[in-house]
Amino acid sequence: MEWLTAACAALNETTRAAALARQGQLTKPPGALARLEDIAVQLAALQGVEKPQLQRVHISVFAADHGVAAEGVSLFPQAVTAEMVRNFARGGAAISVLAKQLNATLEVLNLGTVSVVEALPGVRDERIAAGTANFAQAPAMTEAQLAQALRAGRAAVLRAKQSGAQLFIGGDMGIANTTSASAIACVLLQSEPALLSGPGTGLDSKGVAHKAQVIAQALAKHGLLPSPAGGRGVGGEGASSVLRHVGGFEIAGLCGAYIAAAQQGLPVLVDGFISTIAALAAVRINPDVRNWLLFGHTSAEPGHQRVLAALDAQPLLQLGMRLGEGSGAAMAMPILQLACALHNGMATFAEAGVSDKD
Amino acid sequence: MEWLTAACAALNETTRAAALARQGQLTKPPGALARLEDIAVQLAALQGVEKPQLQRVHISVFAADHGVAAEGVSLFPQAVTAEMVRNFARGGAAISVLAKQLNATLEVLNLGTVSVVEALPGVRDERIAAGTANFAQAPAMTEAQLAQALRAGRAAVLRAKQSGAQLFIGGDMGIANTTSASAIACVLLQSEPALLSGPGTGLDSKGVAHKAQVIAQALAKHGLLPSPAGGRGVGGEGASSVLRHVGGFEIAGLCGAYIAAAQQGLPVLVDGFISTIAALAAVRINPDVRNWLLFGHTSAEPGHQRVLAALDAQPLLQLGMRLGEGSGAAMAMPILQLACALHNGMATFAEAGVSDKD
Repeated sequence: MEWLTAACAALNETTRAAALARQGQLTKPPGALARLEDIAVQLAALQGVEKPQLQRVHISVFAADHGVAAEGVSLFPQAVTAEMVRNFARGGAAISVLAKQLNATLEVLNLGTVSVVEALPGVRDERIAAGTANFAQAPAMTEAQLAQALRAGRAAVLRAKQSGAQLFIGGDMGIANTTSASAIACVLLQSEPALLSGPGTGLDSKGVAHKAQVIAQALAKHGLLPSPAGGRGVGGEGASSVLRHVGGFEIAGLCGAYIAAAQQGLPVLVDGFISTIAALAAVRINPDVRNWLLFGHTSAEPGHQRVLAALDAQPLLQLGMRLGEGSGAAMAMPILQLACALHNGMATFAEAGVSDKD
Repeated sequence: MEWLTAACAALNETTRAAALARQGQLTKPPGALARLEDIAVQLAALQGVEKPQLQRVHISVFAADHGVAAEGVSLFPQAVTAEMVRNFARGGAAISVLAKQLNATLEVLNLGTVSVVEALPGVRDERIAAGTANFAQAPAMTEAQLAQALRAGRAAVLRAKQSGAQLFIGGDMGIANTTSASAIACVLLQSEPALLSGPGTGLDSKGVAHKAQVIAQALAKHGLLPSPAGGRGVGGEGASSVLRHVGGFEIAGLCGAYIAAAQQGLPVLVDGFISTIAALAAVRINPDVRNWLLFGHTSAEPGHQRVLAALDAQPLLQLGMRLGEGSGAAMAMPILQLACALHNGMATFAEAGVSDKD
């Protein structure tokens, strides 16, 4: 696991400054493109070029089952995880449709559905186990399983990088995975389960209360209850330990992917609730990962805003989405691409012969 | 001007219901795509098909100069309006870059720059006058000029409709046009100028205060000061009269375009501050126009939110943009297109063999 804390790639301050200067010369009032300007300048620093490009986008969807589903924390049966893996492969899922429309590469990593899934195009069978253990009763995974999940994420990023991807999006699929994600966030943020538990795929208030109770009891069992003193929360090896006790294979996969992307110098567009909590774990393990993360959308899952705030993240979209799969990040992709097109394609005042305000 | 109040096209409630039913069968938790579901269902009702399409988008940018620029209400010289018309034609402006990226048709209507602009590809020379009169001293335009501007907007929509456009975006360009738009909104909303005046292209607080004073004095001169009693504001012929006294050719063009689009059954994606005030005038003249309007973004111009609230509009994007040209609407286009792609392309639970929560 030593690779987790290896150095992240450095940002290029020269190209950042060049991009910022260019923005000041384009034919618009200064600052009139607001966040689109910020995005272009940030991507210039990340990609190390004055004119960033986002034609080649890689989407990896990490799928796995969760033992904690046995506690009745989801409205949908556990079989849906494997069924959705098939739906991803056949093009019928939301992320499949979005990837096709956006001309992005989509790969699905099965890190541990309960049942074996037949070979399918675009799906990598990397099952670590038949789902995690039920963390209400035992640690969700072993050290070796955690290391394997983190490495699977890293391998996805290395494939993306090798194929020339200019941006990485991670997605998640796993029945009961908001319960796992909330449990992780409770420990990392030293927050009460009630503050970070939400309806997921559609629980009513009674269901949400049950979910929060399952999380609270599990955290007590594993000695992970938030300290009454609060505080910054858990970092470093503590974050890895949290992933092992109450995490999921797909969440660990996302965490490993984000760390590797930052080490490889590949910008990341983070999706919603599950992905942001994986990103928080990644940043706690290796703080410089934060530099490489952009955030696609704010989920309807109520705890998302707390996690975003902890990362000082302002997502691009607020459309009330709560689907996962990487779908919220995919929806934000065109904004990044158009921000680059404007930055690269607009004329300067001098080129266009337009009078500046001076 | 009788055409302004002719009936708008009816919405198709059968296709709306069919689209809503389809959304309930797609492989996602109910409501998980949130606003994307609403958009697809609304477009199904507007286009009269269960599966709406948005491949062909028409953008008309209306450009004109404003006599009120003489009052020192903008940081940029008036020559910029004509210079930007050239920049639109040559592909260097933000909306030019966006239209190209989005594969949208872009036409520019010069409704009245101060100086004549040479013939340019993609620019229609429909100058009504060398800018409006300075409404600080006299009505901005004559009845005949107003009618001509409104008809120019209608003609743009008829061209769009004839070419098979599935969505219409209007944009604006005109130095000092936030002053005109704010003045219109003050009367239509019965609001004080200070509440609806903002920095535009970048005025400081002193500049904004001067702008509000120019507006207040002009409204007093034309007998248009908000009633101390407040109230709903001005509708019907009153709204036309407001456009004539303190409007601009490009704002009237947008207003005419929105009314004609609703009459022709062509959905509209409204841009920012200027466009939303033109839309408000259109809805006051012909209330059923509202059904045909979607809203692209919330501008950084502080008065925009009041105007949006008066239209009960929730724009898709909040990116802090304040450029005009139709650029905020263009940025939101991919969201509409992806919402349609998801609606049309996702598999149902039955098609995918995915277990529903029941």
